Amino acid sequence: MSLVVVGSVAYDGVETPHGKVDRMLGGACTYIALAASYFTKPHIVAVVGDDFEKSDYDYLVSRGIDLEGLERAPGKTFFWAGIYSHDMNERDTLTTELNVFATFQPKLPASYRAQPYLLLGNIQPSLQQDVLAQMTAIRLAGGDTMNYWISDYRNELLATIAHWDFLLINDSEAKMLSGENNLRRAASKILAMGPHTLVIKRGEYGAILFRRDCHFIAPGYLLEEVFDPTGAGDCFAGGFIGYLASRGIQPQDGGVDLAELRRAVIYGSVMGSFCCEMFGVDRFRTLTRAEIDHRYHEFQACTGF
Amino acid sequence: MSLVVVGSVAYDGVETPHGKVDRMLGGACTYIALAASYFTKPHIVAVVGDDFEKSDYDYLVSRGIDLEGLERAPGKTFFWAGIYSHDMNERDTLTTELNVFATFQPKLPASYRAQPYLLLGNIQPSLQQDVLAQMTAIRLAGGDTMNYWISDYRNELLATIAHWDFLLINDSEAKMLSGENNLRRAASKILAMGPHTLVIKRGEYGAILFRRDCHFIAPGYLLEEVFDPTGAGDCFAGGFIGYLASRGIQPQDGGVDLAELRRAVIYGSVMGSFCCEMFGVDRFRTLTRAEIDHRYHEFQACTGF
Repeated sequence: MSLVVVGSVAYDGVETPHGKVDRMLGGACTYIALAASYFTKPHIVAVVGDDFEKSDYDYLVSRGIDLEGLERAPGKTFFWAGIYSHDMNERDTLTTELNVFATFQPKLPASYRAQPYLLLGNIQPSLQQDVLAQMTAIRLAGGDTMNYWISDYRNELLATIAHWDFLLINDSEAKMLSGENNLRRAASKILAMGPHTLVIKRGEYGAILFRRDCHFIAPGYLLEEVFDPTGAGDCFAGGFIGYLASRGIQPQDGGVDLAELRRAVIYGSVMGSFCCEMFGVDRFRTLTRAEIDHRYHEFQACTGF
Repeated sequence: MSLVVVGSVAYDGVETPHGKVDRMLGGACTYIALAASYFTKPHIVAVVGDDFEKSDYDYLVSRGIDLEGLERAPGKTFFWAGIYSHDMNERDTLTTELNVFATFQPKLPASYRAQPYLLLGNIQPSLQQDVLAQMTAIRLAGGDTMNYWISDYRNELLATIAHWDFLLINDSEAKMLSGENNLRRAASKILAMGPHTLVIKRGEYGAILFRRDCHFIAPGYLLEEVFDPTGAGDCFAGGFIGYLASRGIQPQDGGVDLAELRRAVIYGSVMGSFCCEMFGVDRFRTLTRAEIDHRYHEFQACTGF
């Protein structure tokens, strides 16, 4: 079953200890859709400026991504630049130029409205809410958010995630949203806000999936070399929702196949790990589904006991 | 099969967001031996002062720990005090009074020398080397170290661990010892220094066991409440070596049962997690082997896929 993804398509400038790229394709929606494209057909809703390269457009099309919802607006594409610390555990933002993204109003093409899966990338909560309201046959909807919305748009955010099946955030955001330092207690509080499924991403340490009655802890895949962690969390999200969509899973309260949710977390980790192996989206230019499944099995081999 | 443990027996003062204890039984050797005592008989080699309480001595005896190698010296017992940050991910040392530990020269009782398992807690590398040299029928020997020995006694440390089967250190120590930020590359370098098995502890994020041809990643057990993390890493070590000793495992290169090594890592994590549930060694006053095995199975249930 196919998937609608809403969020940013951007250009990024990134410097890591392994090198520097001044401008390359990026943005949460891009990473999510690319990762999900190995499992299902993503339909994206995003905006770019008139500087958006034909080669980038063609690349997304080549991955089977539906770009009917990619709006072109006069002006420049969202640009972000950042630099990573020596051990890559921290990064500083050097530039954020919202450009056409500043006034982004997601417009869903008619053909998208009856799609069953929806992933709302990190944008203003009220826009996320508008998109979900336009969908007519949702089986599974959820998304991401960030510290800015948690602190400055809290009520709007709470009203938004109350309608989500799942929330996918990182550990510091989970602590901030819940006001709890302990992840188990943080998860209980967040699950009381609406979503029946919570995935807390922990960067190199993996991820934890929480539901009201159980949890699943997955360590991170151990890479020999991390070239560029940009987009890894979004690729996790893309692998997670992409796998669920490919299997037609509808994990509501009660009647859910937990084994499938666990597999979705591992596919998420696998996609996040591949993302780090090259700058930006470059790893996806050659990555195959066979390599993904191979790494899934490697994961099984080095975590089972 | 039984186990010799060498290291510090101490009194600790600890403050965490959950409370403050001015003086309680502590020390690496104490935690290691207590955790291991659920699996095998530990024989400890350590020194205490004439202030060492009879109730603490009796408690160790009640856990089946052999104290023949516990020397009593004139003076005070090693005292350490520290305070944890709000999220308990950092701690500051407030006091370190080495006292009788400053001149500690481990003396092995004759009855200890033919024991098959040896865990060398974090003490000066040359002392660790002396102890191993006195053992006559070792099946498995290894230990811990710390940043101070890695930076200031590097050659002595390298000469010491060259004879060990396993090294058990935390992630920042592994990076420091190897000069590599990536754990996989760090592990390769450390395994070239002698030990055939390396366990890198990652605190709340679990641990990774490395051998030359494979690795095993275990996430940390997710506690509802961490009262006091003091000693958790030592309890990990005690559970790890204790389990291996209880099974008579001799994981040399080549002929090793990797499944048993994996189980040892999980038992280590389980013992570390229990340690955090109360101040100091208090959790071990009531803990039973049935609770340990129950948590082991819970671990399996929330990590398998």
